[in-house]
Amino acid sequence: MLRPKVLLRYSHHVFQPKTALDDSIKALPTHELFQTLGFIRQSQSGLVHWLPMGLRTLNKVESIVRHRMNQDGDALEVSLSALSPRSLWEKTNRWSGTELFKLKDAKKASYCLTPTCEEDITNLMNEYITSYRDMPTTVYQITRKYRDELRPRGGLLRGREFLMKDAYSFASNEEEALQTFQKMNAVYNKIFQDLKIPFVSAWADTGDIGGDLSKEYHYLHEGGEDTLLTCDQCGDVSNVEKCESFPDEVGLHSGDVNVKYALSKDHSTLICYYYPSTRQFSWNLAMDAMEGDVDVNLKNESNEKVLKVFERPDDEIMFSKILRVMDCRLNSRSNFPDFPLQKYLKNNFGQLNEVSLVAAEAGEICGSCEEGHLRGDKSIEVGHTFHLGTKYSEAMGSKFTDSNNNSNSIPQMGCYGIGISRLVGAIAEVARDSKGFKWPTSVSPYLMSICGKNEQLVQETRQTIESPDVLSQFNSKLGLGARIKLSHALGIPLAIIVGPKSWPKVEVEVRGQRWNGNETWKQSYETHKDEYDWQIIVTDDGTEKHLVPIENLSKICNILLEDL
Amino acid sequence: MLRPKVLLRYSHHVFQPKTALDDSIKALPTHELFQTLGFIRQSQSGLVHWLPMGLRTLNKVESIVRHRMNQDGDALEVSLSALSPRSLWEKTNRWSGTELFKLKDAKKASYCLTPTCEEDITNLMNEYITSYRDMPTTVYQITRKYRDELRPRGGLLRGREFLMKDAYSFASNEEEALQTFQKMNAVYNKIFQDLKIPFVSAWADTGDIGGDLSKEYHYLHEGGEDTLLTCDQCGDVSNVEKCESFPDEVGLHSGDVNVKYALSKDHSTLICYYYPSTRQFSWNLAMDAMEGDVDVNLKNESNEKVLKVFERPDDEIMFSKILRVMDCRLNSRSNFPDFPLQKYLKNNFGQLNEVSLVAAEAGEICGSCEEGHLRGDKSIEVGHTFHLGTKYSEAMGSKFTDSNNNSNSIPQMGCYGIGISRLVGAIAEVARDSKGFKWPTSVSPYLMSICGKNEQLVQETRQTIESPDVLSQFNSKLGLGARIKLSHALGIPLAIIVGPKSWPKVEVEVRGQRWNGNETWKQSYETHKDEYDWQIIVTDDGTEKHLVPIENLSKICNILLEDL
Repeated sequence: MLRPKVLLRYSHHVFQPKTALDDSIKALPTHELFQTLGFIRQSQSGLVHWLPMGLRTLNKVESIVRHRMNQDGDALEVSLSALSPRSLWEKTNRWSGTELFKLKDAKKASYCLTPTCEEDITNLMNEYITSYRDMPTTVYQITRKYRDELRPRGGLLRGREFLMKDAYSFASNEEEALQTFQKMNAVYNKIFQDLKIPFVSAWADTGDIGGDLSKEYHYLHEGGEDTLLTCDQCGDVSNVEKCESFPDEVGLHSGDVNVKYALSKDHSTLICYYYPSTRQFSWNLAMDAMEGDVDVNLKNESNEKVLKVFERPDDEIMFSKILRVMDCRLNSRSNFPDFPLQKYLKNNFGQLNEVSLVAAEAGEICGSCEEGHLRGDKSIEVGHTFHLGTKYSEAMGSKFTDSNNNSNSIPQMGCYGIGISRLVGAIAEVARDSKGFKWPTSVSPYLMSICGKNEQLVQETRQTIESPDVLSQFNSKLGLGARIKLSHALGIPLAIIVGPKSWPKVEVEVRGQRWNGNETWKQSYETHKDEYDWQIIVTDDGTEKHLVPIENLSKICNILLEDL
Repeated sequence: MLRPKVLLRYSHHVFQPKTALDDSIKALPTHELFQTLGFIRQSQSGLVHWLPMGLRTLNKVESIVRHRMNQDGDALEVSLSALSPRSLWEKTNRWSGTELFKLKDAKKASYCLTPTCEEDITNLMNEYITSYRDMPTTVYQITRKYRDELRPRGGLLRGREFLMKDAYSFASNEEEALQTFQKMNAVYNKIFQDLKIPFVSAWADTGDIGGDLSKEYHYLHEGGEDTLLTCDQCGDVSNVEKCESFPDEVGLHSGDVNVKYALSKDHSTLICYYYPSTRQFSWNLAMDAMEGDVDVNLKNESNEKVLKVFERPDDEIMFSKILRVMDCRLNSRSNFPDFPLQKYLKNNFGQLNEVSLVAAEAGEICGSCEEGHLRGDKSIEVGHTFHLGTKYSEAMGSKFTDSNNNSNSIPQMGCYGIGISRLVGAIAEVARDSKGFKWPTSVSPYLMSICGKNEQLVQETRQTIESPDVLSQFNSKLGLGARIKLSHALGIPLAIIVGPKSWPKVEVEVRGQRWNGNETWKQSYETHKDEYDWQIIVTDDGTEKHLVPIENLSKICNILLEDL
């Protein structure tokens, strides 16, 4: 092999902004800030290319999740094909899902790009789980997932292609399954602690994925799409979709009343849910009120459509029932809509009172302790755990031999998701200010930058630092101030400023935030300030700087990074 | 969060074979052996799920490639969306490629799943490369790629979804581009050295991807699909598709002659390539003979179709030409096919002699040095580098400002592929014997296994070993012999055998191969054998075992692993 004659200097700064940043970044939406700073590039609506800076942060989030899944979750990593055959999705009635990307191969076989892998993983594990001795088992993967959202928005928060950690647990009985569910929630707590950004966990709706028990993990943020309700007495936190409340006083609503029609599972009963027109109807509470005896396939159908399905010949009317379910906020003076059916018998009617049918609102009484009041917070969902029971294992024909030698037992499943790329977007959203991003050290693309125009001093400084996590290459056209500004905007926790004036002392500017409120560095400072010749300067605008000799730089940076 | 009451013992052996292996694995094709041993599971034709064992090896190959690309290649890692819009592929005339997986989203926009990313990366870099100062730049990604092969085969060697490292270089002039091409080939040499399996590099055909210069990296293997020809004089190695040979003596073929028709680029000339019917027509040599003046779009068309395209009204016949190109192996007594056109003029004919039009064969004279003879070897291709020139940058409208302030300069590109999942399949194929796989330490799923039925001794042994790369969990039903057999079949280089009889001594059985021929462990053995109380036993069947005290186990394993 011939060797290159010239040592080429590669352009590692190629994705950086080519000119100095100005104050306009303050007003940029996070998704655009990501692009301005060279973290990602949107290729199509809902699709992004990850650039080197963004990929570093993405990889760090991924590593934290993987580490905890292995070490604390005892989970086995797999990596499934993204192409899943139609036949599997028909078994669970999910092929008709409108958000599936579907395609055919050259032989006309149909596939979807997997948005989640309950079908595939259950089908796969059917080959390997044959005895109760093979459980509990949790498998997970960190792979790209696909969802053809009609209105992708929020950049990384809701993309059509995203990196997701999805885990699936298999247990031989419900107790083992609930233990696994708890264990996985403990893993989630550790993951979110490792990430350093404050989070809350909330009981949640199981939604379309089904199952019995579900927790969500959220970052509180005023721009979030979710709403959490927290009780000021019992501390219970729930997603608004799952939260039941009681009105301060019942029967106070005397305005307009809305109605939502539904049918019982056997279609013998028309259910008329009445609720205040000023409130959000809650399908979960409506299901609970009927103890689940509702045909969920009609959930998203219009009232007209439901009535059409209920329509029957005159001679069968006597065998049908009509059940009026009244939200407890209504009273008899409320303005009810007309009842649309002409032919019915008085005997057909039943009525259910004193239930809550609408989404809880901040200020109402907690439905859990029935004492405290609910506080509402906007939030961004970043993780979700489900105890699924046998919904998928039954549909996919899973069987195992239990300890009593019964070979027709069905495994209990759980599933556990974290959107890795979504987390990058959520952390960025929560941890930014007018200067740009402000990453915790756990996921910052670099821990430190070295800003200086004197290339030799930059190189000397670089060599004193052990960590490989240092950004020292900038576009040569950028001045010192522009480099510091860029480092801050990129959200790198420490900017090391070198120049001939102060040399052999350098300045360390702290950009990062002390997320846990810990200030352990102050103790180290008191202990070592003389020994290390370590000075602190706080400027008028509150910027914290440390003036340190080059030979102690690496030690002092390590001390500062611990709290960031 | 509630904590689990019971410490659950997770079933980490769930993907292992449930019963002892028998000798039938000897005859299993590699793709089936992978599945029997729980490395992967085929989900559909050409699609696989990676299981924990296989994923460990895949990740190790990936890490070696990434490390060399970063450290020696100065390359920047990105990660592009797998969904690429139709518009980009139309710019390079590659949308009609039959092996593209195509799909439409809910808004009817067309995408393909990327098999390779020249279009996307060039389009992306158009945003960032604006000046010669932004180059040379090399970017790469390690992502899943998709190719809808009609006949996927060879398991990991030719799948429809595969993990690929694809790199793309951008240079401001040809000299810089060739330096980058050389640099990347040096990186490839290091990668393949790191992997330890012997390899060869060969000059190669640039194929459909286009470009001027190309090298391939191969593992020699009798079951391979490729053929390499090596000259015994000049040492030149070429893929058979690229290799030119001379017959031992010209004009010796007097049997049947085949003809392949083609047209010149302007369609004014019908080219009739005549060659011995016993040989393989080489499109590359045929192109060279015409100095490239051939319409490549007709390459795969039948002779009938080419003649139909050439058809023209009688009054235009005089403006057309017919060129007969003769392979030098033919003579006038050879049995030529009839010329199919009725209307032509004598003046229309031309003839080209003494060229070689057929693929070289082992035994012929090397076309490069014209002295040595060619030796043929079957092989598996595992990497490919291309100098592309401006083929893609021109089609994608790339422009930059060069050092003379010319803003219409076009970047020179290169592209460089390594199939990561293919490499796993290729190494497995090359490095296996009747007992199973035989991984080099660089990519072995584990470096060591601990085989023993006494759980306490296994745990004590586990704790003396520093490396985390140890397999110690087996299906409890497997006996000691079955565990050792499984460890060997999995291809783990060292099996540590523990039992109460020999304790506190343990046996280390060497399964791995000394790929580089190095035996540096022998010197360490001579130096330390007394100090470490280290005994060697070679059994009748040639098995190499080391009997060592538990306290020296970790040190001795490290010494042994160095050569494996």
